[in-house]
Amino acid sequence: MSALSFRLEATDGFARAGRIVTPHGEATTPAFMPVGTRAAMKVMTVQDLRTAGAGIVLANAYHLMQRPGEDVVRDLGGLHRFMGWDGPMLTDSGGFQVWSLAELRRMDADGVTFKSEIDGNMLRLTPERAVEIQEALGADIIMPLDHCIEYPAEREAVERAVDTTIAWARRSVAAQTRTDQALFPIVQGGMHDDLRVRCAEALVELDAPGYAAGGFSVGEPGERTWVTLARTNDVLPTERPRYLMGVGTPADFLAAVAAGTDMMDCVLPTRNARHKYAFTPRGTLRMRNLKHARDERPVDDTCDCATCTTHSRGYLRHLSQMDEPLVWTLLSIHNVTFMLRLARETRAAIAGGTFAAFRTRTLAGLAVDDA
Amino acid sequence: MSALSFRLEATDGFARAGRIVTPHGEATTPAFMPVGTRAAMKVMTVQDLRTAGAGIVLANAYHLMQRPGEDVVRDLGGLHRFMGWDGPMLTDSGGFQVWSLAELRRMDADGVTFKSEIDGNMLRLTPERAVEIQEALGADIIMPLDHCIEYPAEREAVERAVDTTIAWARRSVAAQTRTDQALFPIVQGGMHDDLRVRCAEALVELDAPGYAAGGFSVGEPGERTWVTLARTNDVLPTERPRYLMGVGTPADFLAAVAAGTDMMDCVLPTRNARHKYAFTPRGTLRMRNLKHARDERPVDDTCDCATCTTHSRGYLRHLSQMDEPLVWTLLSIHNVTFMLRLARETRAAIAGGTFAAFRTRTLAGLAVDDA
Repeated sequence: MSALSFRLEATDGFARAGRIVTPHGEATTPAFMPVGTRAAMKVMTVQDLRTAGAGIVLANAYHLMQRPGEDVVRDLGGLHRFMGWDGPMLTDSGGFQVWSLAELRRMDADGVTFKSEIDGNMLRLTPERAVEIQEALGADIIMPLDHCIEYPAEREAVERAVDTTIAWARRSVAAQTRTDQALFPIVQGGMHDDLRVRCAEALVELDAPGYAAGGFSVGEPGERTWVTLARTNDVLPTERPRYLMGVGTPADFLAAVAAGTDMMDCVLPTRNARHKYAFTPRGTLRMRNLKHARDERPVDDTCDCATCTTHSRGYLRHLSQMDEPLVWTLLSIHNVTFMLRLARETRAAIAGGTFAAFRTRTLAGLAVDDA
Repeated sequence: MSALSFRLEATDGFARAGRIVTPHGEATTPAFMPVGTRAAMKVMTVQDLRTAGAGIVLANAYHLMQRPGEDVVRDLGGLHRFMGWDGPMLTDSGGFQVWSLAELRRMDADGVTFKSEIDGNMLRLTPERAVEIQEALGADIIMPLDHCIEYPAEREAVERAVDTTIAWARRSVAAQTRTDQALFPIVQGGMHDDLRVRCAEALVELDAPGYAAGGFSVGEPGERTWVTLARTNDVLPTERPRYLMGVGTPADFLAAVAAGTDMMDCVLPTRNARHKYAFTPRGTLRMRNLKHARDERPVDDTCDCATCTTHSRGYLRHLSQMDEPLVWTLLSIHNVTFMLRLARETRAAIAGGTFAAFRTRTLAGLAVDDA
């Protein structure tokens, strides 16, 4: 019996609405999960996150194993207590970060050796070590070490990555000693639908509490993503949650849901905030633009976040122009709230059987770009 | 009849406890006033400020006249609405900033011409223009343009600065057209007690709703500050609030109160936070220190701020080491809360007639440095 349960509450086409129950509480799906890579959401406090309506929050084992070290987090009471977040949490294994960040990466059948981009130390990750780290951290959902691969890639290389990913997923499950954490195997396979299907079928044999799709948003053409993702999700068991890793924009969120995805994470809301961009239902605002200077309206007059109920576009434009650090916080609060609300509204549309119309209408608004 | 009233509620030696009533609500004294130079508290939202217990909040006319321009702030509903702060506000005139920041400064009897350090534009401030700008901004308390002077300085130069400051204060009062703003003349005079007294006596003739002491903390020896400040305050009317500009540390706050000061502002709580320092009753913590790495205790176990009730020293040390931007916010929240609480406790001690013992005990704690 897994520590995590999933209840599918409604479907509308391939889109699904459900509920995930973890030892640290529930989260509704489709879920957008804010990312606190180093156990901090850049410029949002956990109080801000709670107010924004966050369900599941992410952190990253690759970063935390290096600083402060997973033993420090464990000794300080685990990741929940460390971050001050008592809701559901998920940690990524670091497979993607080894691929995208680390220098001098050398893979072998047993694991991967790499040079830390932080301090130049040579580090080693194996499936067993990735589980050990994440058991010390103590998130509710943990991820196995996998083999991510670039796009485009030779078919043979993708096949080898799939084989490694499957073997490591099995070893990861075998390495688990805690019973209160749910491990989600990750489907790889590049943009080869047949390799995705093969990988997914092998992983389904593990009877895992949930499954993830990795290796998307690595440079492939947009439409390719959704077709391959849909094929992948189609192989996964209906009664388990499906997590698309590291994607994406508001439009991507809707596309992933349409392809049968239940959970997504992305750093975009806080990254866009740092660059002074604000999401709205009528396109993304570049807050530095002069046209906002005397605009009394909030960023989004349909949003109930602290930023929109307190400040004008003119004020945010002033802070953006001056590069005042507060604007990062204020726009992060708004952008995260925007994504969480998009997830809630998507859920309601699925429950009401109107997802297709909701998606069309929402995408049309996002494309207007005259906010 | 002034828009601002002050009620002296208790005295203990030269220390005073009182209450300031403005069109935007009350503030108790002694007051510590957080500084939002560009109409933003660096990394604290106005919700954070309210939770921390802030009374009066500062902004700066010198910065706001340049960006976004006082007309923009006025058109967006004034500084209160612009910042989203509905409590009492004070704006500084820019006299100190012209002296400390601007290039190519040229003073004449009528005002000062200077080159903006922001965009190189040549700008002009006169007493009348400083009032005009601050009337457009709309703070409850406004400051006249004055002539700040370096330390040490020739006596003749200080005398001329005092003459200019007095003349400009008179012109500032005459220039006021709004009746809902209180203008506090600024006493200058360097570290010459007799010049301070002469300046104060001349300004008292204006029957202003409050008075400020400027030109302190400009490089003079510490003890000199408090002796000269006490002499200055001694000349000011008992029934009007006294504001020491731009000072200082927790110990400075207590010294200023002991010298009869009612209001103080300083950027130190947020600046220290940026450099990863945390105030505590037992000295200042350097959060980067390795000794905090596995410390489960909060920064200050007597503090009820969101940072101390949520996070361990170990977590803050991790964020400090990684230079995660959240640590600036978390330590700002704590440091500002610390200063506001120090002000409240100081007030209670004065009301209870135990200020001297409170100050001795508090200073002893601050000096321990084994937090």
